[in-house]
Amino acid sequence: MEVTRTLARYIVNARSEDVPKEVKREAVRSVVNWLGCAVGSCRHEAVDCALAALSPFSGPAQASVLGRDEKVDILHAALLNGISSHVFDFDDTHLKTIIHPAGPVASALFALAEYMPVSGAELLHAFILGVEAECRIGNAVCPEHYEAGWHITGTAGVFGSAAASGRLLKLDEQQMTWALGIAGTQSSGLREMFGSHCKSFHLGRAAQNGLAAALLAQKNFTSSNQVIEAKRGFANVMSTKHNYDEITKDLGKTFEVSLNTYKPFACGIVIHPSIDGCIQLKREHGLSGAEIDKVELSVPHLVLELTGKRTPQVGLEGKFSVFHSCAVALLFGAAGEKEYSDAMVRDPKVIALRDKVQPTIDDKLRDDECHVKLTLKDGRVLEKYVAHAIGSLERPMSDKDLNAKFHVLVDDVLGEEYAERLLKLCWSIEGLRDAAEINRQCAPSAKTERLRAPGSQGAARG
Amino acid sequence: MEVTRTLARYIVNARSEDVPKEVKREAVRSVVNWLGCAVGSCRHEAVDCALAALSPFSGPAQASVLGRDEKVDILHAALLNGISSHVFDFDDTHLKTIIHPAGPVASALFALAEYMPVSGAELLHAFILGVEAECRIGNAVCPEHYEAGWHITGTAGVFGSAAASGRLLKLDEQQMTWALGIAGTQSSGLREMFGSHCKSFHLGRAAQNGLAAALLAQKNFTSSNQVIEAKRGFANVMSTKHNYDEITKDLGKTFEVSLNTYKPFACGIVIHPSIDGCIQLKREHGLSGAEIDKVELSVPHLVLELTGKRTPQVGLEGKFSVFHSCAVALLFGAAGEKEYSDAMVRDPKVIALRDKVQPTIDDKLRDDECHVKLTLKDGRVLEKYVAHAIGSLERPMSDKDLNAKFHVLVDDVLGEEYAERLLKLCWSIEGLRDAAEINRQCAPSAKTERLRAPGSQGAARG
Repeated sequence: MEVTRTLARYIVNARSEDVPKEVKREAVRSVVNWLGCAVGSCRHEAVDCALAALSPFSGPAQASVLGRDEKVDILHAALLNGISSHVFDFDDTHLKTIIHPAGPVASALFALAEYMPVSGAELLHAFILGVEAECRIGNAVCPEHYEAGWHITGTAGVFGSAAASGRLLKLDEQQMTWALGIAGTQSSGLREMFGSHCKSFHLGRAAQNGLAAALLAQKNFTSSNQVIEAKRGFANVMSTKHNYDEITKDLGKTFEVSLNTYKPFACGIVIHPSIDGCIQLKREHGLSGAEIDKVELSVPHLVLELTGKRTPQVGLEGKFSVFHSCAVALLFGAAGEKEYSDAMVRDPKVIALRDKVQPTIDDKLRDDECHVKLTLKDGRVLEKYVAHAIGSLERPMSDKDLNAKFHVLVDDVLGEEYAERLLKLCWSIEGLRDAAEINRQCAPSAKTERLRAPGSQGAARG
Repeated sequence: MEVTRTLARYIVNARSEDVPKEVKREAVRSVVNWLGCAVGSCRHEAVDCALAALSPFSGPAQASVLGRDEKVDILHAALLNGISSHVFDFDDTHLKTIIHPAGPVASALFALAEYMPVSGAELLHAFILGVEAECRIGNAVCPEHYEAGWHITGTAGVFGSAAASGRLLKLDEQQMTWALGIAGTQSSGLREMFGSHCKSFHLGRAAQNGLAAALLAQKNFTSSNQVIEAKRGFANVMSTKHNYDEITKDLGKTFEVSLNTYKPFACGIVIHPSIDGCIQLKREHGLSGAEIDKVELSVPHLVLELTGKRTPQVGLEGKFSVFHSCAVALLFGAAGEKEYSDAMVRDPKVIALRDKVQPTIDDKLRDDECHVKLTLKDGRVLEKYVAHAIGSLERPMSDKDLNAKFHVLVDDVLGEEYAERLLKLCWSIEGLRDAAEINRQCAPSAKTERLRAPGSQGAARG
């Protein structure tokens, strides 16, 4: 059974024209959502720290830190953009595996696109293939792999980055097999890191290490030919169970990117049904939050396992607290990045309400399902059943929702007008001769240059 | 139980003057052995490939690729020197864990020493602490962790590199705790890779990623405070068993570097007793190899598990073949790098003899013990019992042995005279004001410069 080689062969030989139009459309939606997250978080302290720590060792100014004017070598760009795309925990989710698919793949591809000529259509196809590789490998080892403690976006994401990067680099079948091998032997990322900068670091390293794997394989740096299925390979060492059919069956017929979903809330996906229910109740009953005496939740066990932090101390920890999340949802009717600031988790009003949140485990519930029951101080009881959370496959974010989310994230960085231009450019990626035009338009200095261009208002003033 | 923090606190506060003289002496021997391996292998195709693939993305010329004139940024230097120090499989072994301790630690430290002022004594102490961290963490999860399929020099080595680098960077206790966390969440390396370039890549990445972890922690990039002992931390996720006392007990009283051993043969350590036995028999009986009809070995199971390749195709695979190794030992009385060339594993004489090697498992034998029984074509039977292989703790390589090994490795790169100078410099590391003087003297161009210096013969000629 040649699992790794079968996957490699598919990635090398797949043809863009065989990918259905609606699959490509979902890939564009994934890229739009990823770009908004990456640019929106580009000034996060995790990005600042990593840039300060590593830029003295960066190579030539080859690729953009998206949303900033700094340029670094493509490996560091993949790292930094991977970090920023995930640090708000506001990105995307392949719900079967809880992989955040775009980060590891797109962060590598857009870096590479600034280094070599890559059309938008080529990049998009490589993106689809990278997502295919990481999600299929994830499917094969789920849920045991995740339950063992692995952050699957890091561990599977590195395969996705290698596959996608290797496709752009036009690796042959043997080189692609090695690239997956070099990627797989770097597979890492512990769930213990959730709530610290290291969670988003996993995505960045997956992007960077997968890209490096493809670059090494291009020079015939050798590896195993069976990294996935070997006795001492990825699946056996890092999971108690695996199903290789998930990797090799129906390649080119089904597309995992079609199963991608986009986060309406900037926190762990498992809290989304609870937030959804709270926001619906707040809106329907015009609640201020002050009248609430008790917030009872029925949720599946993963909610408490992943997001059971009762007393988060910093914003990042708030993203892993169903208590904090329900409190801000009821107080502000939102759970965007602003509701997860350090100040917000320390706000006495928020703390008072979060202490009233009482979750109960009900494992008959699906992951995107929950019951919310509010008891008000006046004795009234309000209930909401959420069958599928907003943002799920059954209630997907519309293109309009994605655009609104993009503006929420990017307007603060580039201003509304330039955010809108960037958004349109990104939606039109399939027609771009040079995919890196998107990277360039993310730089704040690009805006200044445009203002300085002859005939522009800025130039007239300047 | 604060395992990670206890270790971090020790690394931050340990004093060089509290380290016994004989421990420092063993550390110097480890560094001498490491340097010979790194310089000796500096033109190996794995190093060439990696340098070709990654140098376009390297930062400023901060640190040496040891034994070559190329300079790269310190992160890439750590990677490349880590690869070259291990690619001959000729380095060192902490026998309790099968960790090759020096590679991940020294490759990071010497790179850092070219970037900031570091005395030889400081470097040596940081080296001792890094080896302490990786070997203690290895002890805590051994042997289950290795048996699960992890290449422990990669998985534990990254902690060693982070600890040692963090010590030179003068991290405080919290930063050191984070550095261990950032390192631990990058812990990776699958045994499946043995026989390919990726095996030595594990050491390089461990060196590079540990160094990056320390640099990130220095800028307060946050991580878990319990990467080792947390429920979803390193020990629980990557091993079925662990003993945290191995990490926290007698810190500063015992020193793992004292248990380091140096390889007399350029292959997997578990074959060494068999090679030793074969070489002894060859010498004692003046065998040519042609007169041998059968080579029977009694060995512990790990020998066949790790080095059971009956028909290696390339030199790297020969290093994991007890069959090939015994054949060259009997034919040439040696098992150095030359006996593991691609040509050697394809030599018909070697193949003929390797097919006569018949190992049998006897798990009553210790790892450094074996029986060799030769049946000659004339009917004679010759036997050798090896109680402890040469290079073991009980029969250690002497300083003279280490010097001879250094010359075998380095003379081809720098010439005998300059190899000897470098060797003397390395033995005197504790007295060096600038540890990086060693790096500089590894460059072939340094030799030319010395020849060109006023008054030298070279200058007179030139």
